[in-house]
Amino acid sequence: MGCKMNAAVSIWRRLSLFVLVSSLCSCPCRAEDSAMENIVTEKKAEESHRQDSADLLVFILLLTLTILTIWLFKHRRFRFLHETGLAMIYGLLVGVVLRYAIHVPSDMNNVTLSCNVNASPATLLVNVSGKFYEYTLKGEISANDVDDIQDNEMLRKVTFDPEVFFNILLPPIIFHAGYSLKQRHFFRNLGSILAYAFVGTVVSCFIIGLFMYGCVMLMKQIGHMGGDFFFTDCLFFGAIVSATDPVTVLAIFNELQVDADLYALLFGESVLNDAVAVVLSSSIVAYQPEGDNTHTFEAMAMLKSFGIFLGVFSGSFALGVATGVVTALISFNFTKLRDFPLLETALFFLMSWSTFLLAEACGFTGVVAVLFCGMTQAHYTFNNLSPESQDRTKQLFELLNFLAENFIFSYMGLTLFTFHNHVFNPIFIVGAFLAVFLGRAVNIYPLSFLLNLGRRNKISSNFQHMMMFAGLRGAMTFALSIRDTATYARQMMFSTTLLVVFFTVWICGGGTTQMLSCQKIRSIGPDGVERRSTKHESAWFFRIWYNFDHNYLKPILTHSGPPLNATLPACCGPLARCLTSPQAYENEEQLKDSDSDLILNDGDITLSYGDVTVSTDAAGAHTSGTPVGGVAVNSDEALDRELAFGDHELVIRGTRLVLPMDDSEPPLPLDSHRHRHKNETMS
Amino acid sequence: MGCKMNAAVSIWRRLSLFVLVSSLCSCPCRAEDSAMENIVTEKKAEESHRQDSADLLVFILLLTLTILTIWLFKHRRFRFLHETGLAMIYGLLVGVVLRYAIHVPSDMNNVTLSCNVNASPATLLVNVSGKFYEYTLKGEISANDVDDIQDNEMLRKVTFDPEVFFNILLPPIIFHAGYSLKQRHFFRNLGSILAYAFVGTVVSCFIIGLFMYGCVMLMKQIGHMGGDFFFTDCLFFGAIVSATDPVTVLAIFNELQVDADLYALLFGESVLNDAVAVVLSSSIVAYQPEGDNTHTFEAMAMLKSFGIFLGVFSGSFALGVATGVVTALISFNFTKLRDFPLLETALFFLMSWSTFLLAEACGFTGVVAVLFCGMTQAHYTFNNLSPESQDRTKQLFELLNFLAENFIFSYMGLTLFTFHNHVFNPIFIVGAFLAVFLGRAVNIYPLSFLLNLGRRNKISSNFQHMMMFAGLRGAMTFALSIRDTATYARQMMFSTTLLVVFFTVWICGGGTTQMLSCQKIRSIGPDGVERRSTKHESAWFFRIWYNFDHNYLKPILTHSGPPLNATLPACCGPLARCLTSPQAYENEEQLKDSDSDLILNDGDITLSYGDVTVSTDAAGAHTSGTPVGGVAVNSDEALDRELAFGDHELVIRGTRLVLPMDDSEPPLPLDSHRHRHKNETMS
Repeated sequence: MGCKMNAAVSIWRRLSLFVLVSSLCSCPCRAEDSAMENIVTEKKAEESHRQDSADLLVFILLLTLTILTIWLFKHRRFRFLHETGLAMIYGLLVGVVLRYAIHVPSDMNNVTLSCNVNASPATLLVNVSGKFYEYTLKGEISANDVDDIQDNEMLRKVTFDPEVFFNILLPPIIFHAGYSLKQRHFFRNLGSILAYAFVGTVVSCFIIGLFMYGCVMLMKQIGHMGGDFFFTDCLFFGAIVSATDPVTVLAIFNELQVDADLYALLFGESVLNDAVAVVLSSSIVAYQPEGDNTHTFEAMAMLKSFGIFLGVFSGSFALGVATGVVTALISFNFTKLRDFPLLETALFFLMSWSTFLLAEACGFTGVVAVLFCGMTQAHYTFNNLSPESQDRTKQLFELLNFLAENFIFSYMGLTLFTFHNHVFNPIFIVGAFLAVFLGRAVNIYPLSFLLNLGRRNKISSNFQHMMMFAGLRGAMTFALSIRDTATYARQMMFSTTLLVVFFTVWICGGGTTQMLSCQKIRSIGPDGVERRSTKHESAWFFRIWYNFDHNYLKPILTHSGPPLNATLPACCGPLARCLTSPQAYENEEQLKDSDSDLILNDGDITLSYGDVTVSTDAAGAHTSGTPVGGVAVNSDEALDRELAFGDHELVIRGTRLVLPMDDSEPPLPLDSHRHRHKNETMS
Repeated sequence: MGCKMNAAVSIWRRLSLFVLVSSLCSCPCRAEDSAMENIVTEKKAEESHRQDSADLLVFILLLTLTILTIWLFKHRRFRFLHETGLAMIYGLLVGVVLRYAIHVPSDMNNVTLSCNVNASPATLLVNVSGKFYEYTLKGEISANDVDDIQDNEMLRKVTFDPEVFFNILLPPIIFHAGYSLKQRHFFRNLGSILAYAFVGTVVSCFIIGLFMYGCVMLMKQIGHMGGDFFFTDCLFFGAIVSATDPVTVLAIFNELQVDADLYALLFGESVLNDAVAVVLSSSIVAYQPEGDNTHTFEAMAMLKSFGIFLGVFSGSFALGVATGVVTALISFNFTKLRDFPLLETALFFLMSWSTFLLAEACGFTGVVAVLFCGMTQAHYTFNNLSPESQDRTKQLFELLNFLAENFIFSYMGLTLFTFHNHVFNPIFIVGAFLAVFLGRAVNIYPLSFLLNLGRRNKISSNFQHMMMFAGLRGAMTFALSIRDTATYARQMMFSTTLLVVFFTVWICGGGTTQMLSCQKIRSIGPDGVERRSTKHESAWFFRIWYNFDHNYLKPILTHSGPPLNATLPACCGPLARCLTSPQAYENEEQLKDSDSDLILNDGDITLSYGDVTVSTDAAGAHTSGTPVGGVAVNSDEALDRELAFGDHELVIRGTRLVLPMDDSEPPLPLDSHRHRHKNETMS
């Protein structure tokens, strides 16, 4: 369904000349033997379609192979290679085969008609003996590639439209990330995560940009540069390689049940800095100084870029949240929709997809909107869904994420050998690796130092080293760099980016277990003891958010939390009654706040919350619709309890693949704590 | 991912001229103001992308609206309008708005460059001032549409590439149909279903073709025909409108729990005749007599077409079954894959998709292969999946089916007003309706008469009337007719087909409840009594298949059924031991044959089968790997039991939306029968 769109997107994006000319260049034409030609055409058409199917089949079989091998690894508890790394290796192998073993010379007949005209509009009408044929622009081809096109058809065939990544493959990955981000530890570390994601990414972008500019200058001096490379290009490179993607690391964290705060910091940062990097890179591209020299510094253009960054980011954020809230409201009001999980799931899926489309249609960034939509859906809509739909949506997006992620990584491996315009420059590559290292270091260490000044629960130095180490680059970096490979600078960036991704995924990803034991980062069980004393950490930010969310948003958008009329001031009574639908309290099960960790846990550790208790009280009395003044909704108490006991309750399981392991049983103290907690709230 | 493929498909399919010429028509070129133009281009590109997103958003919101309205209907138990009918209505409304209310004149600049050359290759290189632009062929445009292209951009935008239906939307629908076809009643009526699907569809195709040829002759006589319309076109029309799609009817059958045999006959016929119609229509297109007049009768060409039909059908069948079997074998041997439902589900999905691609790559019909793959997966692979993956795959394909189906139907509604080349000819339309009626009648009544000669359980006349009435046309007919709308004949067919679909879905679909009560077709509860006496119906076909499947296929491909070494002759002992993996009998749960109705039932009615009992015995003794000679595997006994009790056990629930209804509780006798059955097999 996104096909037409994508085709159009690529046509438009890559269209670099546009002339308002309606010129006609007439040539003699023959229409003889048309019947014979028709048959030839049909056969050609069929053969090409077969070839296309076979190409896609290669990818599908690659993924199948990856799955079977992953299974073997999981089975053998082999943790050095993650599925994404494996997918890359298989992609590489296929790429080598396609590049060197198979050579399908393109059928000259497919391509050879050249038409020298004075414009390149998006649509071209070709008049052949009275019949009109419509052509759509696919893109510009550099002059030295014209021969290549006719050279190796196979390599051309396995090259996907880069917009496919942005419009089809990335959205489910990003949505899934947002949908999985729903855990208390994320909100407890929200301040730090935002600092890393925003300040850190911007700092990293500029550090890398400056460093690379130095490299580029050096290369120009010694004559190693074969084309233009401006400062904006360097900044752009900084933006795209600042998006971290520690899937590999997090998968191992999941398996080993590493410290929850570290997990939250890393995962939260990586999810949000993807969004920051996307908007940042598009803002850098939008930097257009007026006047002749478009690559000088100009304050106005700079300010405008900054404005674009703020506008696009906040717009995408607002749109994503808005769609999430609308979905939550629909699922809240159409309570009986719960009887039809299929309808519910379909609605959820469509609404989430429409966020992407709406954002793109409004000129914002769909991927960013989808991220915040996912987070909102997880926080509110998820609670309104029937248990079956909760499972269905989780599983659906898990599957889509898995397929898309592995597809991207195997394509990454493939493209190292099949991409035609690679520019591997040793100086640039070495510079890039140093810059990436430096950028990450300047992101993590100074920021951690500053954050530790405000945090009660300090980010210890071994955590900092681990975060430094876990700065892997992945799908987002790749998608951003392959999006535009028209110029020399972009081609060099793309080739270098590929190497950065390969290195970080294989080396850093593979060394995670070693790094963890080297840094003596223990798993969650014993760690809990240490951190019990550190409650109320970074509480002021969390506390404000929690109170607002707990008292107002949750009651309006979900069936959990206290009734609004208990939390709103007395003067707002009528409003509260109006917003709190009587049917919201129809049965008690609906009131269970399946919030917090249900998405991340496997459901075996069900928590009983402060707010659950409150709302069950309210419903237990069957006072639906009437104010429940007697029940004091002291959210501070609930918060305190949550902060005090939250530490022990959480076992991050993630939705990634977890091997049922003997050596990592859920910590036993959990249960006793939970019971104590329950008793406390009941008394 | 299918994007590139689809684009290529449409390019190739619609390419009707192909000349091996490399002509160059040079024009003067200017490259001034290129920077300015670049900016203009970027803006245009962005705007176009926004427009595309907005267009797709229209469809997504349409589907959302459909879901909410369906929910309302379900809630109110309003059965006159099915979700697909509703989607069509919404599509129609949007179509009217797009057609008459909004008029977006196309930007002349996008389109206006015409280049008169003497060929129309798939790829065109345009040389603009030294820069090369690559264009891909989109298709032929009839001369009088050239103005239209520049007329209303909006209408063009909402038109999807017709191959999207075949390559993206139909496969999940058809796979889901195959995956849902797994029920005993289907196999019990296999002979009749095959007769209706094969003989009936071919007969219907030719009857409709002949009748329409009469109409066309008449139209030519009175001068109502504005273009060519050959006999092959008539036959093609016959083929495409012979594919029935009674989703609406079956949904109501589900809700009312109408007779299981009638359901199986209708559903089975509709699923298989889709496959027959696809292959039939492509065989008719392939009819190419040699010589000048390509529309005369020629025995050789006819035979060749027939050969193509047989070859493509059996090839697609074999491929679909083969992939299904491979998946079953993988899931059988990688038993530990069950620990990772995500991997399992992904594998299942990928293997099923690769069937489609493989079939297309081999020149067979992907849709047909996918159908048989789905049936095989349901029959074998499904049993090897972990319970969670069983749920996941069911739900995944249910969702995909739901979305794709409603998308197609809403697009159908939309296209009635937005399609540009409608040819509505009153005589042809009236003729088509008569022909469709006649074709269905000649399919059902004579065939039923003949089948009744052989059947013990006669197809009663009210069943025949119901089948006649339930001959709705749907997604497949639409997809086949929109695939090629290049010629006058095809355009007339497309317009007429749309009307046929609308009429049958709304009138026949809406009148199902009335028709059921009019024909006095009772629901399954009381009906069971009547049919209990008719066991062993059409048993010879079923018996052969059942024995083979039960004794050989099930043990090889699934963890259910008797061990192979018990069913194979003694001489095949080593082979049997080799094929029966010891781990297959590791635990008893795996041995449960979740076959039969699990896909269709909600799991609340679990059946204990003859073959389950046998295999549990074998495993219960923990004789894994050693021959279990003592356990007599009398499949005849199992079959008898199945035939005797199958009638009462089945409550068809379907995977379609079923309203929890007070008036349709599952028949109570079920339980007692089940217990009796259990006791019998235990003794």
